Amino acid sequence: MNIRPLHARVIIRKQEEETTTAGGIVLPGSAKEKPTQGVIVAVGPGFTLESGEVRELSVKVGDKVVFAEYAGNVIKHEGEDLLILNESDIFAVIA
Amino acid sequence: MNIRPLHARVIIRKQEEETTTAGGIVLPGSAKEKPTQGVIVAVGPGFTLESGEVRELSVKVGDKVVFAEYAGNVIKHEGEDLLILNESDIFAVIA
Amino acid sequence: MNIRPLHARVIIRKQEEETTTAGGIVLPGSAKEKPTQGVIVAVGPGFTLESGEVRELSVKVGDKVVFAEYAGNVIKHEGEDLLILNESDIFAVIA
Amino acid sequence: MNIRPLHARVIIRKQEEETTTAGGIVLPGSAKEKPTQGVIVAVGPGFTLESGEVRELSVKVGDKVVFAEYAGNVIKHEGEDLLILNESDIFAVIA
Amino acid sequence: MNIRPLHARVIIRKQEEETTTAGGIVLPGSAKEKPTQGVIVAVGPGFTLESGEVRELSVKVGDKVVFAEYAGNVIKHEGEDLLILNESDIFAVIA
Amino acid sequence: MNIRPLHARVIIRKQEEETTTAGGIVLPGSAKEKPTQGVIVAVGPGFTLESGEVRELSVKVGDKVVFAEYAGNVIKHEGEDLLILNESDIFAVIA
Amino acid sequence: MNIRPLHARVIIRKQEEETTTAGGIVLPGSAKEKPTQGVIVAVGPGFTLESGEVRELSVKVGDKVVFAEYAGNVIKHEGEDLLILNESDIFAVIA
Repeated sequence: MNIRPLHARVIIRKQEEETTTAGGIVLPGSAKEKPTQGVIVAVGPGFTLESGEVRELSVKVGDKVVFAEYAGNVIKHEGEDLLILNESDIFAVIA
Repeated sequence: MNIRPLHARVIIRKQEEETTTAGGIVLPGSAKEKPTQGVIVAVGPGFTLESGEVRELSVKVGDKVVFAEYAGNVIKHEGEDLLILNESDIFAVIA
Repeated sequence: MNIRPLHARVIIRKQEEETTTAGGIVLPGSAKEKPTQGVIVAVGPGFTLESGEVRELSVKVGDKVVFAEYAGNVIKHEGEDLLILNESDIFAVIA
Repeated sequence: MNIRPLHARVIIRKQEEETTTAGGIVLPGSAKEKPTQGVIVAVGPGFTLESGEVRELSVKVGDKVVFAEYAGNVIKHEGEDLLILNESDIFAVIA
Repeated sequence: MNIRPLHARVIIRKQEEETTTAGGIVLPGSAKEKPTQGVIVAVGPGFTLESGEVRELSVKVGDKVVFAEYAGNVIKHEGEDLLILNESDIFAVIA
Repeated sequence: MNIRPLHARVIIRKQEEETTTAGGIVLPGSAKEKPTQGVIVAVGPGFTLESGEVRELSVKVGDKVVFAEYAGNVIKHEGEDLLILNESDIFAVIA
Repeated sequence: MNIRPLHARVIIRKQEEETTTAGGIVLPGSAKEKPTQGVIVAVGPGFTLESGEVRELSVKVGDKVVFAEYAGNVIKHEGEDLLILNESDIFAVIA
């Protein structure tokens, strides 16, 4: 990947989730912000604490992650839409 | 559980509480944000203080907890809806 | 009490105050947020300073306290409505 | 006084100031928040700095102080309305 | 002066500036918040840094200062209207 | 370049990206804030941490960067429009 | 100059920029906040970090600077309108 995110940012290749439910049942919590999944393709060097220490991110390239639907910005890179967001917008890593 | 929450996040399996009262009496404080109960199924590594120290969370897998009704995000995992939220949104552990 | 509040939270059993005044006189300051009284039934371990130190709360179980009327959340516990709030929402202890 | 304010809070017995001016002249600055005077009847132990140090308040019981009109909360104590506010809402001590 | 401001507050005797321009020309920048001048009559002990250090104010009694028009609160003292504001609302000292 | 940005600011020569898609297909994510590309022509000395340390920026003159569309301010310099923004508004460096 | 700005403030003599373009072409980015130029005529001693250290400003008297159009306050000094603003509102120094 020839994009280098700054600080605590990561670049994600989004994976579309099926959101239609068989039978059209309304999901509990569906009014909330809908998390989305993707795979990390690039990570920044980390975030800087007030002490001056740079703390490495908790995710790495290849991690499949869950994040808030409206987080981050879409960037177009080599004809592909990628998402760039802060690690703090990532909820969890799926093993 | 094959989901690993980041930082101070936890994953909760919600438990529905009965909210109808026999006789239809209006509960005092019922206009406030309604807390909800659930069981913790995964916890993050902790939150980072400005000193650089990572402080472990105060809850562990299996804890039954009370939290604010509209906190967190629903994630769909292996066909089940789980809730992901920050430890700071958890009010108390029920022994 | 089998509920353990996290961090700087406390659990309070509210005590209703008489708010009607004989003769219907308007109280000075009555338009302000009305404080409420209660007794503390459980306290959290304390709040974490940026230095990493956990500072114990200034109130203990049994303390009769005054707090802001709209602070906190009602939780239903063993058929009783209790209030859970942050120590910072407590104004004073009544000796 | 059998009320013990927490942290940086103080309890004040308000003193009504005359606000009518002879001749009905509009006071310069009268559209601003109107400060009020009172006497301190109880003080909290102080505020906690991030370093963990507790810093004593700059006012003591008996001090006559000036504070913002809409600061604080009224509490009813032994049939008397008292005001509870943060030291940061006090502007000055009148010698 | 028998008023002692707390922390970083100062008390100022306002000096009215002429604001009418001969010929009624609109001043550039006149739509902005209009600074006002005055003389400092009392200063607080200083502001407390998170390190616990109290840092003395940069102004002293007798300084002629420029400050934002709508900053601070008017207090009536010995029949005189004085202004109480934070040192941070003072822009500059006029030598 | 005879402009010296202060602190964590950088100056960027914007590069227009083609935004029309052949066939007029609506891009996914196009409702989000659209990132823009440019080349860095000047960088500030860095940002100051509370510890007093000045931390150098993570970008250098010549870097091709991606940033949020509405970040920063346009300055006219030697007949050319340049963009001045904070390093925190830069998402990534394109290698 | 007989005005002494406090802390991180500077005083600027504004220089009007030509904003009309020959031929009436709409400038790209013209909807953004328009930066303005001026010369620094006085600087404050610097800003105080939480560590207690006073950090000198990065600009000096005589520097030609670019700043946001609506930053700061106009003060009238010896018949002249000057601008007083925080160093953080200055984007860059023009060499």
